Amino acid sequence: MVRWLQHYDSSSLFNDLMAGIVVAILIIPQGMAYALLAGMPAEYGLYASMLPLFCYALLGSSRSLAVGPVAIASLMVTSALSEFAAPGSAAYIQAAINLALLVGLFLFLMHLLKLGSIVNFMSHSVISGFTSAAAVIIALSQLKHLLGLEIERGDFLASLTQTANTLPNSDADTLLVGISSIMVLLITKKPLCCLLKRAAAPSWLAEAVCKGGPMFAIIAGMVLVTWLDSASVAIVGEIPSGIPALSLNFINPTLWQDLWMPALLIALIGYVESVSVGTALASKRRERIDPNRELLALGAANIGAAVSGTFPVAGGFGRSMVNFSAGAQTTIASLITAVLVALVVAFFTPLLTNLPTATLAAIILLAVLPLIDISSLRQAWRYNKGDALTLVATFIAVLLLGVELGIVLGIALSIAILLKRTSQPHIAIIGRVGASEHFRNIERHDVSTHPDILILRVDESLFFANTRYVEQFILAHIAQHPNIRHTLINCAAVNDIDASALETLENLSHQLHSEGICLHFSEIKGPVMDRLERVKFADHLACGEIFFTTDEGVRQLETQC
Amino acid sequence: MVRWLQHYDSSSLFNDLMAGIVVAILIIPQGMAYALLAGMPAEYGLYASMLPLFCYALLGSSRSLAVGPVAIASLMVTSALSEFAAPGSAAYIQAAINLALLVGLFLFLMHLLKLGSIVNFMSHSVISGFTSAAAVIIALSQLKHLLGLEIERGDFLASLTQTANTLPNSDADTLLVGISSIMVLLITKKPLCCLLKRAAAPSWLAEAVCKGGPMFAIIAGMVLVTWLDSASVAIVGEIPSGIPALSLNFINPTLWQDLWMPALLIALIGYVESVSVGTALASKRRERIDPNRELLALGAANIGAAVSGTFPVAGGFGRSMVNFSAGAQTTIASLITAVLVALVVAFFTPLLTNLPTATLAAIILLAVLPLIDISSLRQAWRYNKGDALTLVATFIAVLLLGVELGIVLGIALSIAILLKRTSQPHIAIIGRVGASEHFRNIERHDVSTHPDILILRVDESLFFANTRYVEQFILAHIAQHPNIRHTLINCAAVNDIDASALETLENLSHQLHSEGICLHFSEIKGPVMDRLERVKFADHLACGEIFFTTDEGVRQLETQC
Repeated sequence: MVRWLQHYDSSSLFNDLMAGIVVAILIIPQGMAYALLAGMPAEYGLYASMLPLFCYALLGSSRSLAVGPVAIASLMVTSALSEFAAPGSAAYIQAAINLALLVGLFLFLMHLLKLGSIVNFMSHSVISGFTSAAAVIIALSQLKHLLGLEIERGDFLASLTQTANTLPNSDADTLLVGISSIMVLLITKKPLCCLLKRAAAPSWLAEAVCKGGPMFAIIAGMVLVTWLDSASVAIVGEIPSGIPALSLNFINPTLWQDLWMPALLIALIGYVESVSVGTALASKRRERIDPNRELLALGAANIGAAVSGTFPVAGGFGRSMVNFSAGAQTTIASLITAVLVALVVAFFTPLLTNLPTATLAAIILLAVLPLIDISSLRQAWRYNKGDALTLVATFIAVLLLGVELGIVLGIALSIAILLKRTSQPHIAIIGRVGASEHFRNIERHDVSTHPDILILRVDESLFFANTRYVEQFILAHIAQHPNIRHTLINCAAVNDIDASALETLENLSHQLHSEGICLHFSEIKGPVMDRLERVKFADHLACGEIFFTTDEGVRQLETQC
Repeated sequence: MVRWLQHYDSSSLFNDLMAGIVVAILIIPQGMAYALLAGMPAEYGLYASMLPLFCYALLGSSRSLAVGPVAIASLMVTSALSEFAAPGSAAYIQAAINLALLVGLFLFLMHLLKLGSIVNFMSHSVISGFTSAAAVIIALSQLKHLLGLEIERGDFLASLTQTANTLPNSDADTLLVGISSIMVLLITKKPLCCLLKRAAAPSWLAEAVCKGGPMFAIIAGMVLVTWLDSASVAIVGEIPSGIPALSLNFINPTLWQDLWMPALLIALIGYVESVSVGTALASKRRERIDPNRELLALGAANIGAAVSGTFPVAGGFGRSMVNFSAGAQTTIASLITAVLVALVVAFFTPLLTNLPTATLAAIILLAVLPLIDISSLRQAWRYNKGDALTLVATFIAVLLLGVELGIVLGIALSIAILLKRTSQPHIAIIGRVGASEHFRNIERHDVSTHPDILILRVDESLFFANTRYVEQFILAHIAQHPNIRHTLINCAAVNDIDASALETLENLSHQLHSEGICLHFSEIKGPVMDRLERVKFADHLACGEIFFTTDEGVRQLETQC
């Protein structure tokens, strides 16, 4: 941030100011909506939109990332806490605050250990399957607010059946408010926005309409509720005025034993979401974000959330896009957002009393539906059945077994599929192409071979999971061709040889030697050869040799046969 | 087996007969010793040396593997069951039988799913660390029998302190028996064996002495006990005569919930041990074993153990070596062993009443000490710190946390290290060597480059765990070199591209395109290209192209710059 401030001028400030205002207009309704999704009173969404933004603005490396309450982390909070306490109760809120603290501490720990790359263990398929399932669960959870139904908390299938069964009990007034809110959101987002732009309206007006949909929906919802004056439409109710005092009284380590696992998963998922958005936006400006610094900044933001007495936060996809396209130049835009939210919390909460929860549900619904990602499944299915399987399995596991167990199973499955694939590498028997120095697969090309010499190319690093497979392949081939005297492994595609593979190769070499066969190697890469030389691999090869090129090796072996 | 019988003749039968006798001489004391180690009465080791051998002989693909009670599986049985019931009690025996059944069922299941390769997930380092720790635990557990101490069951550290504290209470008579047994074992094994061979004694005599050490130790132990006539020397006691009836009454599915995890681990470890020995012995004869068939045969052997009312079995290392070197031609040798054990069980158990447990402890001690594998650690330390870390961590975890948790943690750690390594692949920036068509690392070789073209070689398959790393590497390099117009990735070492990597590459291509940079690829391998063509990868590359060779690509790009 210090670096940016040196080139900061009034035009940057103007841009940041506009972006800050636009994001504040968005974050106030969204924050309250996500607080309800997380099982917290609505005002806690506003508390999560002040200090955490401040902390991120001071430490973060992304200029455009908008931190605050986000849909998926909020769902994970509900999923983690609803076993412990009734949503909205004092015990529940205390648990949520401790959860935010743990999320922050995990992110700090990952920062200290430079474990930013840990998120790489989550494949795109796992994230896509998880996100889609989370979006479906969130969408279902909002239906009851839109329809005015009373649904008990339960797992996905139970909620689905209960919603379907109680559908006839829908409340007409609530439904009217909900549908009106959806209409306002849909109309301001595309048609009205395009109309204003085409009509050459002032750019600030067009901008405000295009980005401010949720605010218009809120105003329309409150007007409608006042006009209907119906007791059956649920409203947010009175929101305490004033900024909450910062406090450390919430710390309750007895809760941590049960909360560490969900906290770790919220930290990972929140970090993945933030870094993905941050990277995408930074590269549009040919800038870079520092993943390790993001861990620090997001950790600070979550500890900020805990100290403000609220639930975990992350960098949101939608708001960050809005922040970027509204012209945010630096994280000063986030500071402005935080100040504006603080003003609302301090002075204007009475205005929000009549806000219908159906409107908040509509805002959430339209924010999460685009997260249901069918195109990734279609692409994965065409390209790689293993990835498609992971995606579908994660999706189903999250729906049926819950968000935490689902994502853990998805990660385990993707690692198992990876190991399965690398444990059976492609092995080509190769021969010389014409009179050239090239050696290619005998099944794909017209090549010449020598009956006494077996030449193989293993298209994978050699390590514990595939070393037996390669050994078996060679032994099986030799058992079928008793005249083989030399076996040469071309290591051009072998990027690493681990200790298990080293041991197997040495044993294989001795075993083949006792059968009168020499095991040779060629085209071992520099970094691999450096390590092999340290353990004097060449001396342990019985009659085998290491050749620089396959061509050189084969020429020499042919003279011996 | 049917195939072997066609060429079976009287000389094969003679060899199998000799090998069967030698192994029977070995398996009777060892079986009883391992039964005690497994917390079972001694005779159950003999029961485990009849029907299981029969089952394996009919189905197995290895001609020399000697199945029966083994040290490490016996330790795992104790570790799994001593929480449930007092060793030797009826409840304990019932649990052990159910465990054998589950081990058999798991092996069958793995056979049906053709999951023989699942054992590849155990790296050599994990197996080595686990085996060494198991050997240490077994050795410690036998000290109390050798010293005549009363030690309560407990974890490794508790047993170690208790053994050290009660050392002064050692019983002199028991110690005398124990040390004598060790002396007999040591003397017959090497010096006496060499002496007889050098003295040109008849080969059957030399053979009997060299392999029959445990039998001599037993005879010596029983003679010594009779002579000492000391009440303080523990003996095996009366062994019920007669072969046990086969039965299915033991099945108790309520136990399975607690036993499935240890059963799975015993199945895996037993299978790894058996296949390793089987492969080594088969290849000495230029034969092959079929790993999937071994799953079936070992599964049948364990179900045979359950039906005989005893504990899990596996292919043992030591006995298989003896079987092989005694000349076993086919699994008929195992049938002969089984018949001989049955004869002993039916008629001669009264002879074994006076057998001192200190002698059995000495047999176990000398069998497991060679399993403590320091040389693997030394080699791994020199070659690859990650493997050495896995070995040491598995060793310590098995000692401190127990055999099951220890091995699971070892496997998890080895997979984590693998992912960590592949998640940060070696990426070389390459340039043209002289005027040749070769491109090599600019840091290692004297090469020429073009300022507008960045050429990279990624030495790893592209998949979810490293795709972000590669992306960050490219973006970081481009941010530092603003004049770059073309980026070419040489895929010669890329053996696979998964769906996550595909998505990242397509996004990266568009992102670079928006900055005026084209992302090209070259030398994509056949199998990878086939898959990429299915999703029309080339069409999604914005301005990028796919070149057959790096040389061709660079020539064409240079004309554009």
